Amino acid sequence: GHPVYRDMPTTIFEKMSARARETGAINLGQGFPEGPGPREILEAAADALLTRSSQYAPMAGLAELRAAVAAHYAHFQGLDLTPSEVIVTSGATEALAASLLALVRPGDEVLVLAPLYDAYLPLIERAGGVARIVRLTPPDWRITRRALEAAITGRTRFLLMNNPVNPTGVVLRGEELALLAELCVAHGLIAICDEVWEQVTFDGIDHQPLIGLPGMRDRTVKIGSAGKIFSVTGWKVGWMCAAPPIATLLARAHQFLTFATPPGLQWAVADGLARPDAWFAAQRDAYQASRDRLARGLEAAGYAVHPGGGTWFLTIDLPASGIAMDDVTFCDRIVGEAGVAAIPISAFYPADPITHLVRLCFSKSDATLDQAVARLAGFR
Amino acid sequence: GHPVYRDMPTTIFEKMSARARETGAINLGQGFPEGPGPREILEAAADALLTRSSQYAPMAGLAELRAAVAAHYAHFQGLDLTPSEVIVTSGATEALAASLLALVRPGDEVLVLAPLYDAYLPLIERAGGVARIVRLTPPDWRITRRALEAAITGRTRFLLMNNPVNPTGVVLRGEELALLAELCVAHGLIAICDEVWEQVTFDGIDHQPLIGLPGMRDRTVKIGSAGKIFSVTGWKVGWMCAAPPIATLLARAHQFLTFATPPGLQWAVADGLARPDAWFAAQRDAYQASRDRLARGLEAAGYAVHPGGGTWFLTIDLPASGIAMDDVTFCDRIVGEAGVAAIPISAFYPADPITHLVRLCFSKSDATLDQAVARLAGFR
Ligand SMILES: CSCCC(=O)C(=O)O
Ligand SMILES: CSCCC(=O)C(=O)O
Repeated sequence: GHPVYRDMPTTIFEKMSARARETGAINLGQGFPEGPGPREILEAAADALLTRSSQYAPMAGLAELRAAVAAHYAHFQGLDLTPSEVIVTSGATEALAASLLALVRPGDEVLVLAPLYDAYLPLIERAGGVARIVRLTPPDWRITRRALEAAITGRTRFLLMNNPVNPTGVVLRGEELALLAELCVAHGLIAICDEVWEQVTFDGIDHQPLIGLPGMRDRTVKIGSAGKIFSVTGWKVGWMCAAPPIATLLARAHQFLTFATPPGLQWAVADGLARPDAWFAAQRDAYQASRDRLARGLEAAGYAVHPGGGTWFLTIDLPASGIAMDDVTFCDRIVGEAGVAAIPISAFYPADPITHLVRLCFSKSDATLDQAVARLAGFR
Repeated sequence: GHPVYRDMPTTIFEKMSARARETGAINLGQGFPEGPGPREILEAAADALLTRSSQYAPMAGLAELRAAVAAHYAHFQGLDLTPSEVIVTSGATEALAASLLALVRPGDEVLVLAPLYDAYLPLIERAGGVARIVRLTPPDWRITRRALEAAITGRTRFLLMNNPVNPTGVVLRGEELALLAELCVAHGLIAICDEVWEQVTFDGIDHQPLIGLPGMRDRTVKIGSAGKIFSVTGWKVGWMCAAPPIATLLARAHQFLTFATPPGLQWAVADGLARPDAWFAAQRDAYQASRDRLARGLEAAGYAVHPGGGTWFLTIDLPASGIAMDDVTFCDRIVGEAGVAAIPISAFYPADPITHLVRLCFSKSDATLDQAVARLAGFR
């Protein structure tokens, strides 16, 4: 056998960002905000770096941040997590890695929904697990009982899911969440919930955490990301929350993956999580305005657009836009010819991909969005 | 079967630090400097946080930091690494995890030397490997051809080693390094070298990287740590260096463990690595003075001390100090009764431990060291 990673490509996000750096293209590929991040958050971190310890934080995170995460979820999502049920990680990617490496045993099956974030399968496989993929399709990406039940076997132990969904921008509907919870309980599955976009929802939609549904409190790992909440994707501060018997295992894996996370950044995040509701609402409103600006601009340029209810992403539909190219060809051409980097949705399917949709990131300044629209208008 | 981490204890460092926090003991257990870190390094990070991007760094690290690591090793260790052979990680623990998860296939044997750092075995086992442990013993901890050859089998693929050695403070002798290199070449092993203490050597000893020995350039992963070099253990900025065919695999594992590392901290480390020789010499001199201060103080108090040639640690010898307790008992008693936390050396042996030595960390202020000595003098 091969080393597990031998045949694995570089992540599509890094590849596209590298091409954008080389060509000087506007990067609407990898999901990150254009600005440096909110000034008050950056200043809190700079201040903590100069006035507090730069030595090892406690392995599970600063007590202040663990308490702030629990309080934030109590306030925004009505959850009753205790600080000891929160483990701080070096980003949500580490939380995913720690969760899967902690819990999955060789041969365990993990239910996943495609399109899926590209770290999921390599991590499931490195942990010795087997992915059972439920393939969702546009336009409504609906999760059905039939598809889930067809994928669950006697060896299925986990559901790994993402909500709001990257790359589609879909926010799962209440009945889909209820169905997932019902099946987790019925089949004894632990749910690993990548909810990094929980604070990035639009049109008055509120995020519903799966851990809050009946029967899920003790069988869910809830993963969050300060990078997404505070628009500082480079900080790599995340967390995973679970009831004590699971949290204990997660901490074991975390202690040998990164052990701890920079305390200066943790202080700033703890501070940020306690900001007033209006602060979070203003962030959401600003991203919603960016979504609408990009969507309207692209529509005016003749593109068929699917804006979602959350995340920093919308998709364009190539055939509905009168463009006779697949998504990979279109992304290759626009980065070279129009100077705009984007991500083909097919990259989110391990097999049998959807090939007519392209993801664009709108967490950018108005000027950048307008320029990208002008370039894409010229490309048609 | 069990989840791999089910029976694993919390790391001894975290456990002892937690007891020190609870009891208010002077913490000479977990290895970290007492101060916040050098002011100029902290200021560079605070400045980068306020003036540069807080969004995703490139997956393999900032180009400037990768170049700075290569240049630092060219200057201090005569190595010819290129920047593309350097991958930045979220601390050396992540570098260890990425290396083992990238390279070890189920059933591969990994040669390790005990005493060993407590992350090694769980990571080898999580990667599906089997540790082959060569047990070293005091007073000289010598590595012999006989012991190594007895441990190598037809399935041995890797050597995982640490130099300078935590917890003993030993700096491997030239003939030991030559022997390790010879056996790696003869048996086709890849060496994973945890050299995080490379800049913390005393008495005029210079660090010799295994990758610089004949035949090792293309079969070595060299792991380093900014936390150790710059006395900021909480930053969790590290790196792993290897020839391109290996580096490619390491990057694959890294991209799905943490993906990237905070750019503000990376800028400060890049800056720091270019400091003049005198800066690094001053750091070494200061730690050497602390080693000598703690050693002399303990000796005056009747303890038998083994100071090493590197790291932030020295050991005390209990029977030679006239103390009839094993190391675990002694550490338990002094944290409660004397108010000093330390680490038992037995924690570094997975089996058949040495039980008469205790590790103390001396990267502390003179006042703290003197107070710890006074407390330990009173305990006898
Ligand atoms: C870790 S790079 C990917 C960032 C992201 O969430 C995305 O672009 O989908
Ligand atoms: C990651 S905590 C351990 C720090 C250290 O290197 C030690 O104390 O040995």
